[in-house]
Amino acid sequence: MGEFELIERFFKPPAPPASESIALGIGDDCALLRPAPGMELAVSSDMLVEGRHFFADVDPAALGHKALAVNLSDLAACGAEPLAFTLALALPPERARDENWLVAFAGGLRALADAHGCPLAGGDTTAGPLNICITVLGQAPAGQALRRDGARPGDDLWVSGALGDARLALLALRGEIALASAQLAAARQRLERPTPRLALGRALRGIASSCIDLSDGLTGDVGHILTASGVGAVIDADTAAALCAESSLAPDLRRRAALTGGDDYELAFTAPAAARQAVLAAARASATPVTRIGQITAAAGLKLRDAQGRETDNPFNSFDHFR
Amino acid sequence: MGEFELIERFFKPPAPPASESIALGIGDDCALLRPAPGMELAVSSDMLVEGRHFFADVDPAALGHKALAVNLSDLAACGAEPLAFTLALALPPERARDENWLVAFAGGLRALADAHGCPLAGGDTTAGPLNICITVLGQAPAGQALRRDGARPGDDLWVSGALGDARLALLALRGEIALASAQLAAARQRLERPTPRLALGRALRGIASSCIDLSDGLTGDVGHILTASGVGAVIDADTAAALCAESSLAPDLRRRAALTGGDDYELAFTAPAAARQAVLAAARASATPVTRIGQITAAAGLKLRDAQGRETDNPFNSFDHFR
Repeated sequence: MGEFELIERFFKPPAPPASESIALGIGDDCALLRPAPGMELAVSSDMLVEGRHFFADVDPAALGHKALAVNLSDLAACGAEPLAFTLALALPPERARDENWLVAFAGGLRALADAHGCPLAGGDTTAGPLNICITVLGQAPAGQALRRDGARPGDDLWVSGALGDARLALLALRGEIALASAQLAAARQRLERPTPRLALGRALRGIASSCIDLSDGLTGDVGHILTASGVGAVIDADTAAALCAESSLAPDLRRRAALTGGDDYELAFTAPAAARQAVLAAARASATPVTRIGQITAAAGLKLRDAQGRETDNPFNSFDHFR
Repeated sequence: MGEFELIERFFKPPAPPASESIALGIGDDCALLRPAPGMELAVSSDMLVEGRHFFADVDPAALGHKALAVNLSDLAACGAEPLAFTLALALPPERARDENWLVAFAGGLRALADAHGCPLAGGDTTAGPLNICITVLGQAPAGQALRRDGARPGDDLWVSGALGDARLALLALRGEIALASAQLAAARQRLERPTPRLALGRALRGIASSCIDLSDGLTGDVGHILTASGVGAVIDADTAAALCAESSLAPDLRRRAALTGGDDYELAFTAPAAARQAVLAAARASATPVTRIGQITAAAGLKLRDAQGRETDNPFNSFDHFR
């Protein structure tokens, strides 16, 4: 099977694409998109590498889901709604011949794309070590996209959903910790099929003062908000740790997983204390749980606070692909 | 050096970006772009893999140039003007530590980006086998982008610039043919530093009936126009072969290089015969040579015509990454 046939057969959505914002989809030199008037365009690219971001034997449907989910999560963090995505795919020859794998991968990708009205608009396939690069395009009303640089001293720090379970699944799959099979199944779902928080992101426009998605771990990613905003924060470590579902774990491990785990794809965001009811209403409207886990401070740096109110410097480093 | 420092240090353009169309550049979850009112957005992604699209020892500045050039060439084929690009980069650890390589690669990329007012707006870096995935974003007035599906019987078939030299450089670098050193240097420039024909593409809006860029070889890429437009074509094989600079080569090799070579990054386009003067004026205005190499036919299929006017079926297959 050739590269053009491969795109046609496995990846091209049934024409015409679901979205009115696509003037021209797959099959030309460029896709042509029509953002709605008054909208800014949000763009993000993420690359997933075999052996680095996923195991070679991962369920290909889950891989297709995750490859798009991590990109949609970036749109969520900006409060943008999805328009379309492009897929560039390097496949080893044996994968390019493995129809079951391709059907499952494309199916996982398509299901999430359809769920969010975000059709494939174009891309590229080539032979090479397995590498999945997705660029997602979205839109938000001009000037209303959520950014990292708007946190102000006194703002609350919030996080959506749960923390740390994806990291625990990774540790268990690597044989570094043991989880009961029901626990592992739940944690693995979090690792392999993250939920991009698009509805929450959109609901937080005009409410949140800053927002980021959690890909590299809570403390590291919140650190990006702090740097961009020129502020500091204190996180209630026990409140954050309680967002990790694995309550039977050693407290230290659970805390470390929640605070530094990575691969959570939740939103961390700040909002003025006066907006607490609005935040909770946005969470209800988007059917997404949120938890207040700390506060923005004028003093730079990230501190952790224990249940007794004692503050310590953040002892964690977040994940870095080159460290 | 960590991944964030790597982006900051080598790839981030001096703030603020040159383009007014970027509301928010590198350093947030998404870049925010502002296409001008009335414009459609053109999007294309291309992935370059070491050992497949380039040799491991290629000049990194040339590699940076080419990685963006092949994407800008897709914008050129649509008659779009560049807005911005994203870069996703997988680097083996030894490359991530090689500052000379990174400086040169980023420099080659930046120089071409600056030349076309197309700043880096965001991206991703990760460890992994060397892989460069660029997504380029451009804009064209709504409804005026050039497409593949507008060729009509009787239209002229045109091509910009030169053909086949990139392929000859590749064959010579692989030791499969011998070229004199001056010839090799010129051909290698064509292989490693292709010129995206952006000015010509824009000048052809409203004149060309279809357009494509030549990445996989003339006959194969023209075939995409024919399929999309539901037409056929006859190419004057000797006229096309004469666009290959290497006149000292065996005629068969030169013809094959020009007709099937790949990596030319020229534009092939069609226009009504009545638009010949307009095509030539667009070529002059954009300082880009163009040559009329054939004609669109109502009968499907691609035929070659020799100097005596005899037609033969196209004997060539074009390049395919999985064949």
